[in-house]
Amino acid sequence: MNSDWKNEIKTSEINDLLREAAGAAATITTAFFRTSIAIENKLNQGFDPVTEADKQAEMAIRAIINKYFPNHGISGEELANQESDSPFNWVIDPIDGTRAFISGLPVWGTLIALTHKQVPIAGLMSQPHIGENFIAIRGEGAVVERGTELADLQTSQVSELGDARMFTTSPRIFLSETTGQAYDKLEADVKLARYGLDCYGYAMLAAGHGELVVEEGLKDVDIAAMIPLIEEAGGIVTTWSGKSAVSGGQVIAAANKQIYDQAIKYLAPHATD
Amino acid sequence: MNSDWKNEIKTSEINDLLREAAGAAATITTAFFRTSIAIENKLNQGFDPVTEADKQAEMAIRAIINKYFPNHGISGEELANQESDSPFNWVIDPIDGTRAFISGLPVWGTLIALTHKQVPIAGLMSQPHIGENFIAIRGEGAVVERGTELADLQTSQVSELGDARMFTTSPRIFLSETTGQAYDKLEADVKLARYGLDCYGYAMLAAGHGELVVEEGLKDVDIAAMIPLIEEAGGIVTTWSGKSAVSGGQVIAAANKQIYDQAIKYLAPHATD
Repeated sequence: MNSDWKNEIKTSEINDLLREAAGAAATITTAFFRTSIAIENKLNQGFDPVTEADKQAEMAIRAIINKYFPNHGISGEELANQESDSPFNWVIDPIDGTRAFISGLPVWGTLIALTHKQVPIAGLMSQPHIGENFIAIRGEGAVVERGTELADLQTSQVSELGDARMFTTSPRIFLSETTGQAYDKLEADVKLARYGLDCYGYAMLAAGHGELVVEEGLKDVDIAAMIPLIEEAGGIVTTWSGKSAVSGGQVIAAANKQIYDQAIKYLAPHATD
Repeated sequence: MNSDWKNEIKTSEINDLLREAAGAAATITTAFFRTSIAIENKLNQGFDPVTEADKQAEMAIRAIINKYFPNHGISGEELANQESDSPFNWVIDPIDGTRAFISGLPVWGTLIALTHKQVPIAGLMSQPHIGENFIAIRGEGAVVERGTELADLQTSQVSELGDARMFTTSPRIFLSETTGQAYDKLEADVKLARYGLDCYGYAMLAAGHGELVVEEGLKDVDIAAMIPLIEEAGGIVTTWSGKSAVSGGQVIAAANKQIYDQAIKYLAPHATD
């Protein structure tokens, strides 16, 4: 892994920015969480809610990024990209898991990633109702913080697929009959599957409480922050064809190489990238 | 609703018992949550984990019940029933949502119900990782407590099925092809469905963040505590045939009568009780 980016930026500043941005976003999102809020449809087809909290939180995060690094690029879920010639780009999803958010369920999160030449080098997942921040910087490990508690993240050593705990947003997210069937076959061979998680499933995998996340149809903002978290905790994240998952699409995250090697056999034949 | 039970027991004692029991259970369950724990299979077929936390928490809750009301009956998920001639019976599920528990997901809960002649008159759902206690006593309303914060529970006034948020453990819990299809048709007509919730879905319905919970194959311990919570918050809980859900089975919970009347049409033709 190329680490020339470390000559161009201080990791202490990344750390400070992520914590400050998580706090600013939390103030906004928790004020809207579990209240009656105006919900609009993002797409005419299907249901994809955007809340006022989403937009306000992204604006707050962008303001903090621009305070630290005014020349960096920014890609966000809600607002137009801030283009830049810098190799550094911030990738923001202010509320990943909006369906959970509008249902009162504390398994959504605020996601912030930093990429350098398209490689994710830092990631944050913040769940402010619970008060948890999951943070990683490449080469410096991954941690979960809650108040004054701090713990290193370490992925599970469970190595048999039949013992694996798998997470996905829904068994109904898969985009074709064949990919849905591939997922179903994999689900039949793991120990248990949990649904409805979005970013929270990836955080639990990083923390050692699950062995697999399998999804399709992700956007860059859904996954970029989770890559450093999982890799720094000892896990693996790729597309179903084994390429970088930084742009989203079909994603597999695994706690270790043994689980990855067993699970990818179900998915690789159906890779579209 | 018959309330002659109020002559036989002080509601302040029920309140005190529920809070003391929730605290004792929380000390045990949070010590085991997100740690590597020995997991055994309760059934040879399928996966139904019981944890050491489950057993220890139930013993702690039973000790507190017996301290307050030594002559009451007790039914628990983990241990043999404590038989009694009293009309009062406590119904305990120390960890409802064991699959969530062993996957690090904070949507499990400790459930304690008090029934009088088979009618649930008090219920507690406690989620100790987050620190939330949802508590109801019949005739006295329902509340959620978190630390020093206290809020009344009030179900949603959303009245159109097409606007409803629905919760279920999994679209794959339904016990026959016909009940699965009935669920699927209902899911197609609501605004959104969230999976993987067990007791947490009922608590969110009581708190006004969802309009429907639909499940099949429940046990008494899964549902008894949720009935006072939802009814005292303004909602409705029955079996699919409109009978008391206190024994479990096929369960529908709805935020209000309009939602109930629309949803029950999908389910009543497939009622087995």
